[in-house]
Amino acid sequence: MPRIAYVNGRYLPHAKAAVHIEDRGYQFADGVYEVVPVHKGILVDEELHLDRLERSLRELRIAMPMGREALKLISREVMRRNHLNNGFLYMQMTRGVAPRDHKFPAAAKPAVVMTVRQMKPASKEKLEAGVPVITLPDIRWARRDIKSVSLLPNCLAKQQAHEAGAVEAWMVDGDGYVTEGTSTNAWIVTADNVLVTRSATHDILNGITRIALLDRVAAEGVTFEERPFTVEEALNAKEAFITSSTNYVMPVTEIDGRAIGNGHPGLLTMKLRDAYVAHIEGGEGTEAASPAKSAA
Amino acid sequence: MPRIAYVNGRYLPHAKAAVHIEDRGYQFADGVYEVVPVHKGILVDEELHLDRLERSLRELRIAMPMGREALKLISREVMRRNHLNNGFLYMQMTRGVAPRDHKFPAAAKPAVVMTVRQMKPASKEKLEAGVPVITLPDIRWARRDIKSVSLLPNCLAKQQAHEAGAVEAWMVDGDGYVTEGTSTNAWIVTADNVLVTRSATHDILNGITRIALLDRVAAEGVTFEERPFTVEEALNAKEAFITSSTNYVMPVTEIDGRAIGNGHPGLLTMKLRDAYVAHIEGGEGTEAASPAKSAA
Repeated sequence: MPRIAYVNGRYLPHAKAAVHIEDRGYQFADGVYEVVPVHKGILVDEELHLDRLERSLRELRIAMPMGREALKLISREVMRRNHLNNGFLYMQMTRGVAPRDHKFPAAAKPAVVMTVRQMKPASKEKLEAGVPVITLPDIRWARRDIKSVSLLPNCLAKQQAHEAGAVEAWMVDGDGYVTEGTSTNAWIVTADNVLVTRSATHDILNGITRIALLDRVAAEGVTFEERPFTVEEALNAKEAFITSSTNYVMPVTEIDGRAIGNGHPGLLTMKLRDAYVAHIEGGEGTEAASPAKSAA
Repeated sequence: MPRIAYVNGRYLPHAKAAVHIEDRGYQFADGVYEVVPVHKGILVDEELHLDRLERSLRELRIAMPMGREALKLISREVMRRNHLNNGFLYMQMTRGVAPRDHKFPAAAKPAVVMTVRQMKPASKEKLEAGVPVITLPDIRWARRDIKSVSLLPNCLAKQQAHEAGAVEAWMVDGDGYVTEGTSTNAWIVTADNVLVTRSATHDILNGITRIALLDRVAAEGVTFEERPFTVEEALNAKEAFITSSTNYVMPVTEIDGRAIGNGHPGLLTMKLRDAYVAHIEGGEGTEAASPAKSAA
């Protein structure tokens, strides 16, 4: 079955899916994107992703290329044409095609690309082992809250992690505090069982998995602090994990070559993963989280 | 005459010139570019541009997609097919097409796009008036020495300048020093007739016009300091100007709404512009600069 992509109004075979060389996404990284997990045919936390997409576009003053309902229809059509049940939907929107000039074009039409990809959940073996991360200086721009395609520094850091035998790089700001991973948010559990993750300022991307998990955290009665933490604190943590739309909640068992806690996935980490998976399954997770949502 | 673009081995009508949606330039800003001025059919300082292109690619560990001679042949063919005499050549190279994943693909083939555009030199009126600039915080990433297409913050700043009635934004680092413009280098002449521009570290792009002009500066016996300068220093400067491949040397007569010097283009500025234009013309500029080159 050939994969089908949506590109500016047309459904095209993946191999022929192309954008103009003067699309500002290509020449200027002038665009945004979303990755929405698809679980048993359902777009997980779709409204939260669309909220963030609209916010990213608004921050860059790119018009929403179509209404939310139209976007949802196209998402479902791309999923249907690709028979997608489990995996994720990728949406990219840019300021559109215009003769190259840094300033915004007077009349460009925003461009829209959508693709989907099959993906299996993390294997039992991977979850039981956890993943290693490294730490690196955060050299990105100052508006990481915008989910832009300006991802070159993220790619460079991810590659460095990969070459060090790790799966993610935790980036560290000028004051020694961890900001986030290159495509994940970073969390630790202190020796006192306090769950810690950085607040959603301009310094990090506010992950949808992060937001959804914070609802579970409130529902589970976990002690939680929203604040930056240092690399030293992370190395001495009892547990650590990362969250993202494709990783869900993934235990981190090693940072910069040093074992975290007892070197195995933490109990609270796995409890939170279970709560998040329950949320995805649309069962107890959603029910339990409802009262917490207003407090979050 | 339809414009012709070179895209990955083919010469295509501009309207049909496209790249794949999974070209890493589009999804990750994982690519670099050069803008080479074309004057009377000659690619100005071509070797310097190709040196910088190779350096940018090397820093990102993207392989040169072809030898320098092949690149030169294609450049000339694009110019020939578009009957270009005066304007510029745009070259973009990315890490190529691969299934979306932050880390480098194992076997992607670097992508190459080349286009040209007609452009007239700045009008006498514009040169006599000079241009206004504004200052803004520099929110870019830490590797501005790499000429990457990760230009979203540059676009946002240029747009802000445009809306303020200015033609450029000088970006200011956390210590209050000007780094550079969004697509130009920044220069001032102090009350003591000292020419000042920031050193080419990771904080700025080392402009080819900047490099070529430094040769002229040495040849003209101008007192010169390569160091950062503050916004305050710039406001109190006798002269100011910007340099780039499309602006050459352009006088700045206003910063943040305040007139610079007597509010007219500076004498040294115009002398340096003349020297640069002579260099482009391939006459005295080149001859005078030769002894200085080894010292630069």
